[in-house]
Amino acid sequence: MSEFETLVKKMLAGERTALSRLISRIEERTQELSSGFRLLYPKTGSARVWGVTGPPGSGKSTLVDGLVTRLRKKGSRVAVVAVDPSSPFSGGAILGDRVRMQKHAGDDGVFIRSLGTKGRHGGLSHSTKEVVMALDAAGFDTIVVETAGVGQTELEILTVAQTILVLLVPESGDSIQVMKAGIMEIADIFCVNKADRPESDQMVRELTQMVSSLPHDENSWMIPVLKSEAVREKGLDEVLGALEKHFEYMKKHGILEQKWAAMVKSEVVDILTEKLRQDLWTKMESKAHQASLKKLICRKIDPYALAIEISK
Amino acid sequence: MSEFETLVKKMLAGERTALSRLISRIEERTQELSSGFRLLYPKTGSARVWGVTGPPGSGKSTLVDGLVTRLRKKGSRVAVVAVDPSSPFSGGAILGDRVRMQKHAGDDGVFIRSLGTKGRHGGLSHSTKEVVMALDAAGFDTIVVETAGVGQTELEILTVAQTILVLLVPESGDSIQVMKAGIMEIADIFCVNKADRPESDQMVRELTQMVSSLPHDENSWMIPVLKSEAVREKGLDEVLGALEKHFEYMKKHGILEQKWAAMVKSEVVDILTEKLRQDLWTKMESKAHQASLKKLICRKIDPYALAIEISK
Repeated sequence: MSEFETLVKKMLAGERTALSRLISRIEERTQELSSGFRLLYPKTGSARVWGVTGPPGSGKSTLVDGLVTRLRKKGSRVAVVAVDPSSPFSGGAILGDRVRMQKHAGDDGVFIRSLGTKGRHGGLSHSTKEVVMALDAAGFDTIVVETAGVGQTELEILTVAQTILVLLVPESGDSIQVMKAGIMEIADIFCVNKADRPESDQMVRELTQMVSSLPHDENSWMIPVLKSEAVREKGLDEVLGALEKHFEYMKKHGILEQKWAAMVKSEVVDILTEKLRQDLWTKMESKAHQASLKKLICRKIDPYALAIEISK
Repeated sequence: MSEFETLVKKMLAGERTALSRLISRIEERTQELSSGFRLLYPKTGSARVWGVTGPPGSGKSTLVDGLVTRLRKKGSRVAVVAVDPSSPFSGGAILGDRVRMQKHAGDDGVFIRSLGTKGRHGGLSHSTKEVVMALDAAGFDTIVVETAGVGQTELEILTVAQTILVLLVPESGDSIQVMKAGIMEIADIFCVNKADRPESDQMVRELTQMVSSLPHDENSWMIPVLKSEAVREKGLDEVLGALEKHFEYMKKHGILEQKWAAMVKSEVVDILTEKLRQDLWTKMESKAHQASLKKLICRKIDPYALAIEISK
């Protein structure tokens, strides 16, 4: 039995340290993943997965923490995965997690983990998906995936979530940026945090207008635009209510199954891509292509021509 | 002849608007790239490519702008590619570019372009590489690739550069973060900007200590740790001097050829990966795998098992 398989067995038996080590192996992309996922995968599929995103300083951590406290009161087991592809300069995430971990220390129903920049090409969204599956199999009822910013990597990461909550702060230009970057297309819930700031009502109005201008019929989910002051615990019940309402909506319309199917299909493609990329390097460097590789380097053939040669 | 091929011909003939449109086609990943790169690729290989990275607010734009002005005085043609994978929340880049573009409006020797989040999976670093090749073929002597933050995507993007300049500001913890994130491994030059701040000398000392503790022999490049105040035009001659010195160092030690070879090889792998990912989706959704795909979705087989089946 591989080390990873052993870790999966221990994790399924409820060992917390096994879960932590297993996640590290996923991040490191151990070669043994396949053996462990054979055991782990059948145990998945019961967790609710939420994505929370927003600009740095929008109060994501505080809001998520407030949600965790509320979920714990209801007896729900919660895991938080903070993904920070743009560390170290964006800062904060890891330190914030330590503070949060201390708060929930000794509570077996809360698990908090940061995923960083260890992954290779496209590896971070792939790893995040597998970490979420592991937490799901470990029996967490709710898994929150937190990302900062909405770039390419973050959008990929968020495909693991069933519901996406976009947190904004009342600062000039933000709502326009949201429109530009296609965040409208991924948001299921908007929340304007730090709603005590004077510009917050204006922002809520703008977002509400944007949301209502989207094409919709009687079966559409109407994206709510909420207000919160996470540091004062204001508005958090409403956010939790909207998250639960969206879950019921997805259940009713068969959307959960669609999202699951899309997620596991992309997982298969990620597994194959990861393997094929390694194979491609080996193939390109093999004797058969040495002469062409030399021609490529001195610009006698171009990269697309060599790609065609290799793929033959 | 494809539209892309026509654009390449016009660009090689010096048409500025053709260059802009060609870059847009690269960003959109048009299917016609291969025809154009056959013409474009033989014209590459004469530009110096610098990567400039640092946290938001470290003054990258101002510093790069100062370098552009100096290079223009020397008669050098300069292109700046600002890559911002974590927009829109990180903000600033695009607005900053507009301001810069106005400053250099009417100067044919300067080209400034932002690349955003349009790319698909892994697409941004792939596109950036091809944009740099296009600018190289278009006859720019120096190409500056500017990224904010050093996450996974940014590190990939920076592989296109021959020399990497890391800009830091004297703020607590930054130098430790640099060590942690493996930035030491990619930096060829450090510069502490906003050096009028009181903590800057401390930071220069820490960085110098870190740099001198790296393993090195008589042939190693000694990473300089510089100070600048880009807004006051202070220290910029020294930064430019270090960039030129690093170029001479690479030339002397045959490193330019090594970096070029690594870059074009990764370009071939990127081309093949992009193609294969599309093929994999098609193959997975084909009739042959329909039954297994259903089993995957209802958790009767796991993603790794299906990946093995598809790759057979």
